[in-house]
Amino acid sequence: MQSPVDQDITAVATARWATAHDARLSEIMQALVRHLHGFAREVRLTEPEWAAAMTWLARTGQISDAKRAEFILASDVLGLSMLVVEMNHDRDPGATPATVLGPFHIEGSPALPYGADMADGIGGIPLYITGVVRDISGRSVDGAVLDVWQADAHGIYEGQLDAEETRLRAKYTSQPGGAYCVRTIAPLGYSIPMDGPVGELISRTDISHYRPAHIHFLITAPGCQPLVTHLFEEGAPYLDSDVVFSTKSDLVVEFERHPPGPTPDGGSSDAPWLRAHYDFVLQQAATH
Amino acid sequence: MQSPVDQDITAVATARWATAHDARLSEIMQALVRHLHGFAREVRLTEPEWAAAMTWLARTGQISDAKRAEFILASDVLGLSMLVVEMNHDRDPGATPATVLGPFHIEGSPALPYGADMADGIGGIPLYITGVVRDISGRSVDGAVLDVWQADAHGIYEGQLDAEETRLRAKYTSQPGGAYCVRTIAPLGYSIPMDGPVGELISRTDISHYRPAHIHFLITAPGCQPLVTHLFEEGAPYLDSDVVFSTKSDLVVEFERHPPGPTPDGGSSDAPWLRAHYDFVLQQAATH
Repeated sequence: MQSPVDQDITAVATARWATAHDARLSEIMQALVRHLHGFAREVRLTEPEWAAAMTWLARTGQISDAKRAEFILASDVLGLSMLVVEMNHDRDPGATPATVLGPFHIEGSPALPYGADMADGIGGIPLYITGVVRDISGRSVDGAVLDVWQADAHGIYEGQLDAEETRLRAKYTSQPGGAYCVRTIAPLGYSIPMDGPVGELISRTDISHYRPAHIHFLITAPGCQPLVTHLFEEGAPYLDSDVVFSTKSDLVVEFERHPPGPTPDGGSSDAPWLRAHYDFVLQQAATH
Repeated sequence: MQSPVDQDITAVATARWATAHDARLSEIMQALVRHLHGFAREVRLTEPEWAAAMTWLARTGQISDAKRAEFILASDVLGLSMLVVEMNHDRDPGATPATVLGPFHIEGSPALPYGADMADGIGGIPLYITGVVRDISGRSVDGAVLDVWQADAHGIYEGQLDAEETRLRAKYTSQPGGAYCVRTIAPLGYSIPMDGPVGELISRTDISHYRPAHIHFLITAPGCQPLVTHLFEEGAPYLDSDVVFSTKSDLVVEFERHPPGPTPDGGSSDAPWLRAHYDFVLQQAATH
């Protein structure tokens, strides 16, 4: 009998997974086996540590559901998500940088018209986000869809509540000339969820578990590459220590303070309000 | 603002996880970040592939419960489990080799006397497993507890059934002189569970998803290292292609065929029966 473990188990396991029918899967699985074994060998993983890892992984899956993505959170705090974003966006220096999707995006947000209020009565300081969507050659992009989502003034997303109604998310469309206008409230920086396996791990370190205040965008337009990004509030706490590594200086914008009076949507506000101005620049879709 | 991602994200993430309060956790997490990023960089993981991995991980946790350990199965088929076993058992050449625990061990099996039948009416060819438990110096070990579990003649474990009763598992104790006698039925080789995320992945390869017929042992005794191992049936199919890499030539034993007549427990059988004879040799407990 030829016993696999009388040989080099890493070589035997790699050779087995090389039989994946799809060439790309074969490449990925071989690399995964090598790196996984390399990790275990380097730290000389003990059996109790291996067992603790198995339990942690199972619990991380079990706490996940349609609105909670604990493995995405794990990937985020390990820097893997941002690394994957970086590797897959060889960005033209003139284009808006991409950043992580995060675990709180919900599909199917409602379409709202220019300047309509996606906060819809939720308390907070009114915030208007205005600008133009352009392509890399400087042409305005009409009909770009801006899928926008954010935390509330307490740092809470819809996915963290037992919300029946859509909350602080909407799709806006750029107008002829490329202009868009989002009416919302100022988001607050927040802690990532600390009540699950990822939070337990973070709590055993000195890692700051906060994210700086930001608003998420997923922007799509015909002929352009989809753009997943954030806008961050200039001067917000935690910009230097974002737990998911997603801050970029090009994405930090001033939230200008305005007294009561006329607002960018053509209306007026009785309360002080904020304005952030940002022009998104999309790259051409790849042509194959 | 010092943006982490304007720097080397792997270096920044490694430095963060180095702050773990426990030195060993710090070591493990730093190595994990480096190897995880190394894997993603080597294959240039795409965003759809990353998303597929996140979904696979969540599903693998969600299918796991008290009786199904899909992450242990994943670890087994990637060769990680056996690698961890190998690294943690610097074995005296005279001692019985260790192998994987597998996903089907259940705590709290009932204690049975010498030669009692743990199959308890479940159909199959009667099998007596006999031998002596010794330590590395050749002394017999009295009072060693042999926690034994196995699949039935269809290759099914208790954990795979909605069983209310204990099924094909028991704890035996070695007698003065070290002798033990297990009465059971011959196990069948079997497929790992193919109805979950691990099975789906295996089915996209040419990997054989079978294990050769075997019986599990977890043997504990005062002053000795615990031993997790299997005994495999000589000549059984799949000995060369065990999907979890756990076969070792030293653990393969003949299942001798006997006609009806007297049996090793002092009784008698009306049907043909099998006998496997194996002496377990335990290592001394480590002294610190």
